[in-house]
Amino acid sequence: MLRWLTAGESHGPELVAILEGLPAGVPVSMAGIRADLHRRTLGYGRGARQKFEQDELTISGGVRFGLTMGSPIALRIGNTEWPRWVEVMSAEPVDPESLPKGRGAPLTRPRPGHADLVGMQKYGFDESRNVLERASARETAARVALGAVARSFLGELGIRLLAHTLSIGSVRVPEGSALPGPADVEALDADPLRCFDAATSALMVAEVDAAHEDGDTLGGVVEVLAYGVPPGLGSYTHWDRRLDSQLAAALMGIQAIKGVEVGDGFLTATRRGSEAHDELFQTDDGIARSSDRAGGTEGGMSTGTVLRVRAGMKPISTVPHALRTVDIAGGGPAEAHHQRSDVCAVPAAGVVAEAMVALVLANAVLEKFGGDSIVETRRNLDGYLAAIPGN
Amino acid sequence: MLRWLTAGESHGPELVAILEGLPAGVPVSMAGIRADLHRRTLGYGRGARQKFEQDELTISGGVRFGLTMGSPIALRIGNTEWPRWVEVMSAEPVDPESLPKGRGAPLTRPRPGHADLVGMQKYGFDESRNVLERASARETAARVALGAVARSFLGELGIRLLAHTLSIGSVRVPEGSALPGPADVEALDADPLRCFDAATSALMVAEVDAAHEDGDTLGGVVEVLAYGVPPGLGSYTHWDRRLDSQLAAALMGIQAIKGVEVGDGFLTATRRGSEAHDELFQTDDGIARSSDRAGGTEGGMSTGTVLRVRAGMKPISTVPHALRTVDIAGGGPAEAHHQRSDVCAVPAAGVVAEAMVALVLANAVLEKFGGDSIVETRRNLDGYLAAIPGN
Amino acid sequence: MLRWLTAGESHGPELVAILEGLPAGVPVSMAGIRADLHRRTLGYGRGARQKFEQDELTISGGVRFGLTMGSPIALRIGNTEWPRWVEVMSAEPVDPESLPKGRGAPLTRPRPGHADLVGMQKYGFDESRNVLERASARETAARVALGAVARSFLGELGIRLLAHTLSIGSVRVPEGSALPGPADVEALDADPLRCFDAATSALMVAEVDAAHEDGDTLGGVVEVLAYGVPPGLGSYTHWDRRLDSQLAAALMGIQAIKGVEVGDGFLTATRRGSEAHDELFQTDDGIARSSDRAGGTEGGMSTGTVLRVRAGMKPISTVPHALRTVDIAGGGPAEAHHQRSDVCAVPAAGVVAEAMVALVLANAVLEKFGGDSIVETRRNLDGYLAAIPGN
Amino acid sequence: MLRWLTAGESHGPELVAILEGLPAGVPVSMAGIRADLHRRTLGYGRGARQKFEQDELTISGGVRFGLTMGSPIALRIGNTEWPRWVEVMSAEPVDPESLPKGRGAPLTRPRPGHADLVGMQKYGFDESRNVLERASARETAARVALGAVARSFLGELGIRLLAHTLSIGSVRVPEGSALPGPADVEALDADPLRCFDAATSALMVAEVDAAHEDGDTLGGVVEVLAYGVPPGLGSYTHWDRRLDSQLAAALMGIQAIKGVEVGDGFLTATRRGSEAHDELFQTDDGIARSSDRAGGTEGGMSTGTVLRVRAGMKPISTVPHALRTVDIAGGGPAEAHHQRSDVCAVPAAGVVAEAMVALVLANAVLEKFGGDSIVETRRNLDGYLAAIPGN
Repeated sequence: MLRWLTAGESHGPELVAILEGLPAGVPVSMAGIRADLHRRTLGYGRGARQKFEQDELTISGGVRFGLTMGSPIALRIGNTEWPRWVEVMSAEPVDPESLPKGRGAPLTRPRPGHADLVGMQKYGFDESRNVLERASARETAARVALGAVARSFLGELGIRLLAHTLSIGSVRVPEGSALPGPADVEALDADPLRCFDAATSALMVAEVDAAHEDGDTLGGVVEVLAYGVPPGLGSYTHWDRRLDSQLAAALMGIQAIKGVEVGDGFLTATRRGSEAHDELFQTDDGIARSSDRAGGTEGGMSTGTVLRVRAGMKPISTVPHALRTVDIAGGGPAEAHHQRSDVCAVPAAGVVAEAMVALVLANAVLEKFGGDSIVETRRNLDGYLAAIPGN
Repeated sequence: MLRWLTAGESHGPELVAILEGLPAGVPVSMAGIRADLHRRTLGYGRGARQKFEQDELTISGGVRFGLTMGSPIALRIGNTEWPRWVEVMSAEPVDPESLPKGRGAPLTRPRPGHADLVGMQKYGFDESRNVLERASARETAARVALGAVARSFLGELGIRLLAHTLSIGSVRVPEGSALPGPADVEALDADPLRCFDAATSALMVAEVDAAHEDGDTLGGVVEVLAYGVPPGLGSYTHWDRRLDSQLAAALMGIQAIKGVEVGDGFLTATRRGSEAHDELFQTDDGIARSSDRAGGTEGGMSTGTVLRVRAGMKPISTVPHALRTVDIAGGGPAEAHHQRSDVCAVPAAGVVAEAMVALVLANAVLEKFGGDSIVETRRNLDGYLAAIPGN
Repeated sequence: MLRWLTAGESHGPELVAILEGLPAGVPVSMAGIRADLHRRTLGYGRGARQKFEQDELTISGGVRFGLTMGSPIALRIGNTEWPRWVEVMSAEPVDPESLPKGRGAPLTRPRPGHADLVGMQKYGFDESRNVLERASARETAARVALGAVARSFLGELGIRLLAHTLSIGSVRVPEGSALPGPADVEALDADPLRCFDAATSALMVAEVDAAHEDGDTLGGVVEVLAYGVPPGLGSYTHWDRRLDSQLAAALMGIQAIKGVEVGDGFLTATRRGSEAHDELFQTDDGIARSSDRAGGTEGGMSTGTVLRVRAGMKPISTVPHALRTVDIAGGGPAEAHHQRSDVCAVPAAGVVAEAMVALVLANAVLEKFGGDSIVETRRNLDGYLAAIPGN
Repeated sequence: MLRWLTAGESHGPELVAILEGLPAGVPVSMAGIRADLHRRTLGYGRGARQKFEQDELTISGGVRFGLTMGSPIALRIGNTEWPRWVEVMSAEPVDPESLPKGRGAPLTRPRPGHADLVGMQKYGFDESRNVLERASARETAARVALGAVARSFLGELGIRLLAHTLSIGSVRVPEGSALPGPADVEALDADPLRCFDAATSALMVAEVDAAHEDGDTLGGVVEVLAYGVPPGLGSYTHWDRRLDSQLAAALMGIQAIKGVEVGDGFLTATRRGSEAHDELFQTDDGIARSSDRAGGTEGGMSTGTVLRVRAGMKPISTVPHALRTVDIAGGGPAEAHHQRSDVCAVPAAGVVAEAMVALVLANAVLEKFGGDSIVETRRNLDGYLAAIPGN
């Protein structure tokens, strides 16, 4: 069982994350985590904030000499802008007079599409600072850091993950395009929108430019692929053991995600049964499937083919041309506060989605294979694979 | 915290379910649960099996004089066909010679789109009987029974749920059609496909007929609506507290579901930010929203407007005109076993989806409001609502 | 991860239990479970109720041909007295007039030492029937049935459990007495108090007789031993992964248990460090320990030596010579209801404790070794043991 | 639901803790947490290490202006000795040549009574540094910090906790001595062994002196008391909902604890039923109990009287006069490494036990009363208490 918690506010001193339950002996490098954190800040259409979100990474528990120790792993990501927020986000009481006028002012105009209004109602706040500080997508940096660790664990077992962008606004990769493989990650990272289809990528850039010109924002769809997943992760025996269920929870638990698909997803719902499944046939290397419409799961279990899941992201709620809202302090109509000016964060969402899938798979691997050291987990996995008839 | 487990095989003596953590004093009636179980068997395009799936319901724990006791609730749904399966599904060892020739034969031709093949690999079975018995959608009857109890709990707090069919195969309710409300449940139950739009329903019937004629099957999309949900269920503070995440897990944990949406879902991913959110304005009854594109959640919390989630179901995998597979016993190509002849189970999936949403919401209500009796939970809810400014 | 829930009231139709997460291929026999249920009813000093607690066992899910299927296991234990309680414990509303006068009367005099009073306050009941029905130790029969299944799983891996009685009232097995081993279970079952020391057992019988004569009741201490536990179950890395913690929760979660010890427990707290630990030395078979004061755990992990835990049970609260209480209906002083007349239930508590330890160990084994079939779990265990240097 | 994880090694840069699920508006002060951390280092018989364990506390998430925000709380406790351990405990790979000779040497002589040997076997280490770093009681500082936050939450609801020392080695507070109350905490803090009975405290000092002279160590028993606990926390309805079970898990999850009692515990097991329970009688303030033998729980629920639980601690395993062990590197007999020279850590264990009880109670309060702000939780609690008849 893998457990993890994250903490930290968007403008607080740092994000903190603890990952508990990973075996010993898994390689963890600062450089590897930093690379993922960097990938999360990329993408055409990001605004100024990403520039200063240079992440100061610290590993302060659970890793020694570059290897996990079996004990909980503690990661911290410092906020380089913290000096400007020391008073506003102080953990200790401060003299209200000492608060800077701008950043310290109460936020009484809740932004549509954000957690602001409901957060105030739920927690009993009279302004939304406390809400947006935690609801912000800044928190996903902590998940990406944890996901990098999970990905290293999976990598030791031959499982490789990647995310790519399927659509931005109305521009979408054509159905039937080739899927990127583990060798294509560098190319994806180099693409402005992490799109594997060059022609579509160019259209996406234009889509972003047009939205930017109109003072508007865009959403899109990302797809996460996992190669080398063994058959039999997850289970049909209880609903919450289904790998599909766990993947859906993980992806829909990302800020701004409003839709999740496994394999062809909703498209499959429009197909007839004779065209919707993956037929089986014998090969010299064992049983194979004629297609991967199902996205690599059957009966809530990984099949051993490429795992393929998608997440649909709504456009950024903080539109530069502000949405209508209400001023909680006065009660009258108002325009929503807006805090940043990204046009599109879809490529970043792909990096976060990849991290979440990595965490789900790492947990599923431990559930099936156990193990307190990477050697033990790998031995158990190998023994299982060797015992599958015809494998 | 609400916990629940189900057990039981498709052709075993019964399904068994335990629901733990519900407050005392919630009305539970056999008739109410039976009505839901019956709704699950309806829908144009169901085959013969549903006829004999008359569910013999027993409540054997946690309910007294029609009210929950606070202790775990035990439900059992007897299988009226059990006498025909006594030997094949015997819990005790039987003489292999005594097994009936047909039903007792090993199932060595795993069906594409089912759990059969991976289930055998995962659990080390040499035929798939043990797999399909539990992976079958028969198990969802137990969830529907539990969902009926959860729905009764929610009903005591003014929360009403319903499910309707949005699409069957290529036929879909037009965008912008009116949503059914709590008063429309009877009409939905009377519709052959639980579709609220009469014209679309007629097209759906034709779609089913056409597929039936072609020996094929259909999937579709269902939508669950919840009215009267208070603002503030779920939370943005941690990914797995997001109501969206919990709903996605619940829906994607249903057999054959491959896609999940909250509100407008993937459609939202194609919109621009200025057209994608729900603006806020002041009314005499408090703050209202101009639309419900978000599906009743913001920041992972219910907003107090109609909760709206969707699930996309793949077509039934057991197509009457059989799919290609491999015979595990012999190794050669084969045609898949097929066990039943439904064309379409989408309306039933809606009933199951409604049950799953009810269980998620019941848990979220308890997480926020606590309470060991319905009186206590309701008092806590009322106190919270009264304290929201302008409410 | 092993999950389990139980349901059912003391005078309801049955107890129901579901165990979820056990691998496939584990032998489960009705006779084996029945034998454990029978052992739970034994012991010198039990009253009349145990006579009619003949348990009608049904396995209705998760087991086929005597082997687990990997799917959730459903067990039911029928109440042979149910016909006498049909009205009083009816799940459906009944006409109050139809209730039998005695059993149907409201219980308004809460019994000291029982859940009655607090249960009424917590759940908002005006009499205690609903409370005592579930708080009763009758529920432990469900745990014993589940424990029998867990024990069978552990047995397949070479782990054997037994419980014996250390003390009854003021009579206690002398410090330093020999421990029973797996071969002594039959002898323990034959002893009137499941005490391994014949002389002490005779004194215990006299202690029970004396209490019975005085219209009083007795508690005592039981010890559970587990042989063949591999080193490394549980972990020091997080508090709730400590095997000691999980064992303590399981034992203290049994009705009437007020104290729990691992190894020499509180006696160890009086010793000096030089006399309190188990020194290590090399043998031809690997590293051994000079003693087992720690009870087979170090740092929250099993050491590979005999696991030894104890539970202290308070005397039965329903003393035949009744305790003072208050009549909730009237408000005046009263004597407590009493429902049965056992003098001592300590030997039965040992059987329950053994079941709980079995469930904890089964879960700990799965956490460390994983596996979806007993073959896979055993292969993983063997691989681990073979890899320990000098083992 | 309250969740929390801790991370960090004994000689690592810091301990890190995250507490997730606490309502907003709970006062949290650095000074309050520091005071508890300081109390953990006190007690007659502590060695030199405690001197430099001056804890550098940081709150880096979930608290703003001295109040919780509803988001996860992140605490860090810096290790002032870290500069001396930078190479030995480096998260990044280091040149083995650069390791200091002493602290950097492999620990191949596992210490009896510690996690060393089993930890190496479980995680596949060839020396025990990685094990002892996390198994060390240093980790309990993180729990004490979290417990201080939980205690502040409970304090807002009128619940006050304290711990005192019942015994050190063979010296024990006489049965029937007065219990300290919330007003006595200062006196307890001032006592060298946190013992409330002055005469016994003097004997304890002598006991520690004698052990110190003999180069030996001592254990003992601590008791945690909670005043103001409302009736009805925990439940009889399922074993793991029993408050006793949760308390036992929490206490037995502390390093070196080998026994746990609720109320009179094992003493109760020697009493007859007529002398073992707490009788009920009517007072002007409602129903009262004649005694508190049960320790404030009945049927797994708090009764509303003083909650009273105990933990028995084994003597420190690292005895100055070293225990026999084996050298893993060479295989021959050896003397155990020893790392510090405390004689007795029982008073500190009391502080840790108090923290663990606070965390359990905080969770139980949230389970029963819910609430996302302290105002909401308090309102729910008050409503419940007001509804108890005769309260």
